Amino acid sequence: MNERKYPLVNQERDPRFVSLRSLQTAPGRTRTGLFIIEGLRHLARAVEQHARIESVFYDPSTLSNLYGRKLIKQLSRSGIPGVRLSHELYRALTLAAEPQGIGAVLRQQWVAMNSLCAGRDSFWLGVESIESPGNLGTILRTAEAAGINGIFLIGPCCDPYDPAAVRASMGALFAQKLIRSSANEIRHWARSNEVAIVGSSSTGLLDYKTLRYRWPAVLLMGSEKQGLSQQLKEITDYMVRIPMRGGGNSINVSVAAGVLLFEMASHRPRT
Amino acid sequence: MNERKYPLVNQERDPRFVSLRSLQTAPGRTRTGLFIIEGLRHLARAVEQHARIESVFYDPSTLSNLYGRKLIKQLSRSGIPGVRLSHELYRALTLAAEPQGIGAVLRQQWVAMNSLCAGRDSFWLGVESIESPGNLGTILRTAEAAGINGIFLIGPCCDPYDPAAVRASMGALFAQKLIRSSANEIRHWARSNEVAIVGSSSTGLLDYKTLRYRWPAVLLMGSEKQGLSQQLKEITDYMVRIPMRGGGNSINVSVAAGVLLFEMASHRPRT
Repeated sequence: MNERKYPLVNQERDPRFVSLRSLQTAPGRTRTGLFIIEGLRHLARAVEQHARIESVFYDPSTLSNLYGRKLIKQLSRSGIPGVRLSHELYRALTLAAEPQGIGAVLRQQWVAMNSLCAGRDSFWLGVESIESPGNLGTILRTAEAAGINGIFLIGPCCDPYDPAAVRASMGALFAQKLIRSSANEIRHWARSNEVAIVGSSSTGLLDYKTLRYRWPAVLLMGSEKQGLSQQLKEITDYMVRIPMRGGGNSINVSVAAGVLLFEMASHRPRT
Repeated sequence: MNERKYPLVNQERDPRFVSLRSLQTAPGRTRTGLFIIEGLRHLARAVEQHARIESVFYDPSTLSNLYGRKLIKQLSRSGIPGVRLSHELYRALTLAAEPQGIGAVLRQQWVAMNSLCAGRDSFWLGVESIESPGNLGTILRTAEAAGINGIFLIGPCCDPYDPAAVRASMGALFAQKLIRSSANEIRHWARSNEVAIVGSSSTGLLDYKTLRYRWPAVLLMGSEKQGLSQQLKEITDYMVRIPMRGGGNSINVSVAAGVLLFEMASHRPRT
């Protein structure tokens, strides 16, 4: 077999390990524009989606899965750089409770707003200042399943490439368009593309079930504690609410996003 | 002021601290039938819902909130036992990232199946073998907001009184009826109470939007990885699916529960 074997890294001070570990931190990700994915399922999904894999890392003593070993050979043959990590170093790097011994470094994919056209009947999501990476990742996963065309991250949102967000997104990051935006920018974009802005709030006037949605549309969701900011509330065309029917007075933001996204998706004209 | 001051506990071996700490573990909760809640919001909700508070604990050096201090006085005056914990012991006990310095011990509330009548148009939820306490807690919170009458925990579900589940439930535990059940028991209960059993599965034949639901009804949700067991699939009257409209092929179980619960709730006759 014409296989190029990945070099072994077993020193904590090895610059290749130092760079890997820096990607588990927000400054490391921001500086490089890279992020880490872990586990077979995520890696297989990245390959399948033709995500830009910069390098791969694995721990031969943990990676027992045959498919995983094949994947490593395949990536090595396609010329993707990588390292073998000692068991200790892999454990020091991973945040997984039950690590599978395989991971990769990917390039973040941000889309510039001025290159973004809103097609007829397209469906967008904007999230403002979501605090929990787990919630953000779950929202990304739900958005992909609901057929969203792209996601605006408005204000000081947590990092969608945070390991907890990546894990919760279950691979939705590789396929989804992510756009950083201010309230003003999204207003301008929506107006010039004739996109209806639908806001969600517990004090919204319209029951989300009764609104006749028009397309293209963007749904705006606010933060866990504060909801939508006044600035974003002011730019919405419609403000919907999910009526609470029991004793509780609120639901988790990622559950609310799911309820609204799937309701709206069911009204969207089939293309 | 006629206030009875709570005794100070500052030794790790103090039996009062040992019992408190044991409630952060599953065996400790099972043995005693008790569980712990933490934070002002949860405690206030418990008081409001007339939950059975067995005892209270707080750390005077952390509890700066005026309302919190008032609550402690109020509980002390109503004769509820409690302790002041030293800062070190409180930190050793708490699982909160930013502890507010106040918590309580509550009695678990399980309802026996044979005492459970399904009223006309009532709406129930059954969850099977949910693995993540965070998911289970989020489902409990959503179920309460959707007006569910009670929740069946089927098979080896994680503990709804696990601290992560309690936190995610945001107080829904105090108001909700919880019922432990086997597949056979829920089948028998549903048949004898004429409750329609609706199962959820990615391979369900019916789009969840098109089914004409009949009442009373129980919605069954399966585990994160396996979905509903064959045994439960066989007892359902209808099997619905949430159609995936994009690239992703699945959504988080607590999001799926939210989508289905709010859809079904919107079809339920108003009582």
